[in-house]
Amino acid sequence: MFNAIVSADTLQATLDSVSVLVDECKIHLEEDGLEIRAVDPANVGMVDLRLDAAAFESYETDGGLIGVNLSRLEDIAGMADAGQLVHLDLDEETRKLHISIDGLEYTLALIDPDSIRQEPDLPDLDLSANIVIEGKDIDRSVTAADMVSDHIALGVDATDELFYVDAEGDTDDVHLELTRDDLIDLTPGDAHSLFSLDYLKNMNKAIPKDAEVEMELGEEFPVKMHFSFAEGQGRVTYMLAPRIQSE
Amino acid sequence: MFNAIVSADTLQATLDSVSVLVDECKIHLEEDGLEIRAVDPANVGMVDLRLDAAAFESYETDGGLIGVNLSRLEDIAGMADAGQLVHLDLDEETRKLHISIDGLEYTLALIDPDSIRQEPDLPDLDLSANIVIEGKDIDRSVTAADMVSDHIALGVDATDELFYVDAEGDTDDVHLELTRDDLIDLTPGDAHSLFSLDYLKNMNKAIPKDAEVEMELGEEFPVKMHFSFAEGQGRVTYMLAPRIQSE
Amino acid sequence: MFNAIVSADTLQATLDSVSVLVDECKIHLEEDGLEIRAVDPANVGMVDLRLDAAAFESYETDGGLIGVNLSRLEDIAGMADAGQLVHLDLDEETRKLHISIDGLEYTLALIDPDSIRQEPDLPDLDLSANIVIEGKDIDRSVTAADMVSDHIALGVDATDELFYVDAEGDTDDVHLELTRDDLIDLTPGDAHSLFSLDYLKNMNKAIPKDAEVEMELGEEFPVKMHFSFAEGQGRVTYMLAPRIQSE
Repeated sequence: MFNAIVSADTLQATLDSVSVLVDECKIHLEEDGLEIRAVDPANVGMVDLRLDAAAFESYETDGGLIGVNLSRLEDIAGMADAGQLVHLDLDEETRKLHISIDGLEYTLALIDPDSIRQEPDLPDLDLSANIVIEGKDIDRSVTAADMVSDHIALGVDATDELFYVDAEGDTDDVHLELTRDDLIDLTPGDAHSLFSLDYLKNMNKAIPKDAEVEMELGEEFPVKMHFSFAEGQGRVTYMLAPRIQSE
Repeated sequence: MFNAIVSADTLQATLDSVSVLVDECKIHLEEDGLEIRAVDPANVGMVDLRLDAAAFESYETDGGLIGVNLSRLEDIAGMADAGQLVHLDLDEETRKLHISIDGLEYTLALIDPDSIRQEPDLPDLDLSANIVIEGKDIDRSVTAADMVSDHIALGVDATDELFYVDAEGDTDDVHLELTRDDLIDLTPGDAHSLFSLDYLKNMNKAIPKDAEVEMELGEEFPVKMHFSFAEGQGRVTYMLAPRIQSE
Repeated sequence: MFNAIVSADTLQATLDSVSVLVDECKIHLEEDGLEIRAVDPANVGMVDLRLDAAAFESYETDGGLIGVNLSRLEDIAGMADAGQLVHLDLDEETRKLHISIDGLEYTLALIDPDSIRQEPDLPDLDLSANIVIEGKDIDRSVTAADMVSDHIALGVDATDELFYVDAEGDTDDVHLELTRDDLIDLTPGDAHSLFSLDYLKNMNKAIPKDAEVEMELGEEFPVKMHFSFAEGQGRVTYMLAPRIQSE
């Protein structure tokens, strides 16, 4: 049993955060909220999302697991105006999700969860540096790096206490340094890793420009990014594996 | 003789209502206003439009019939700002229409009316049900149906006194019910017909979201939709033939 | 040595004015400002631009000549918000331009000026007529002419004291007349020349709609257009060669 009412904005933010990595996902219906974990086909980018029951206008479930086509569900949610409420009601027998928006009823066929790629475990990593950065600074970095390269290096200089971004193209380079004053927070530690820009661009699309993003970084290690949405009642963690640095 | 001045908005609304079905049309210049009737090449959708002389800033004609290329005329009208006036002046000898917008003069070659598809007669139909619905609810219905199917069923349930929309896809369905309270008016009578969504999507483009649309419906019969524009001085009727329902 | 700070708007207006004609250009770094002259590959359109040192927040140079890729530089300037400042710093040794926008540093490889097409001399011409016209009227003329033809005739009727635009298509024509009252100024003299619309469309893109554009015209002669930007501290002259009129 699953019967819930949620604002269209919150539903869209939830779906967008996952759809930048995968087309289909499993949604765990837990008593205290939804949980989604997914990894892209190349095993490079992972997402772990949690949306608390308190983010819903009403939320009732006795647990369960459903598989959904994300772009289909995004299209449906996109029919609602920002403030409108979306009613979700699972029909256990037909394995269909009834979605109502102001009298309009959409019946969505669910996907067999067993046919969806297995969910990843996001490993606990002991990462050396930790910063808190505004979403708009990630956006600036990614946009600028994209002008010169397919890769982006993210790092922290423990001595100078700054976070930096580097992208090297054939002729042009991009460099950004943010000091402790430019950041919301910085826990220094030497860190430097190279990432595929495509993945970071996709993740960036789902990060609100005004979000406070906690970024954990290491030496040739994955980067983890954590941020909240839905007034703190939704939380996303992205993890992105590094590329091997060419010497 | 035809010499008239009309606001760009009114002219654009007139042209858009017809161009969603045909590329060229005949315009009847009557003493009390313009009349346009047209049917698409497949004989599925028809339009009957009337724009009263009172909708013009000035309007003079001794009658006549001209043939126009609609998209060309739409482009010209699109050069004007919304509030600007468009001056139309027919040169009988050259069969050209002089169109002036704030000093800019466009000379449009007319089309021989005899070369344009014959105008349809919109039949009087004794349709069983009649509703009045907001343009935005037609828009919602069409947009949602388009997500799952190429067809859309429109119907009225006389017993429950409601108007409904149904679209069935391979896996997903869309259903909308509007009761008497959700509608502006409802005269019940059982009705149910299936239509091609492409045509209804095109007609929907020309229906203002805030229009009150009178819809006449029957059992496997065409649907007629009537609405006004130009502050009631323009009136459009669309008629759309039903598809044969597959059993 | 070249070290300057300029608002993003001013930099973008400068680059856009030149990039409508060429992909690469030489920039002369003079003590009292920047100078750019360029001609398109077909030798039909020329631009002469000057941006005074006073248009910059700060400006220091001991002279020099650099070659730049305009679209690359436009992309970088486009990263800044309208009011933001862009810091330009030339590294003489590496021949790279360091561009900083709020902490983001972009290193742009310059182009060898010798590899860029030679700069034109804009000839002094004794043109018979001179008008001052609003940018938005040029925009209207070009947009309307583009609906019917690839060419546009610009002329002045000395007797009737008016400026006119003519475009003749296969079936339709466009004509615009602006009297002394419709213009900002008019110094009459007979003039009539035919121009390629493609070039004028490109130049029109860079002319602000609210600019006062001085236009010099002759009989089968080039047209010169002069306008200011950056509150009068930047000035652009376009010159466009006429097409031979077919008899």
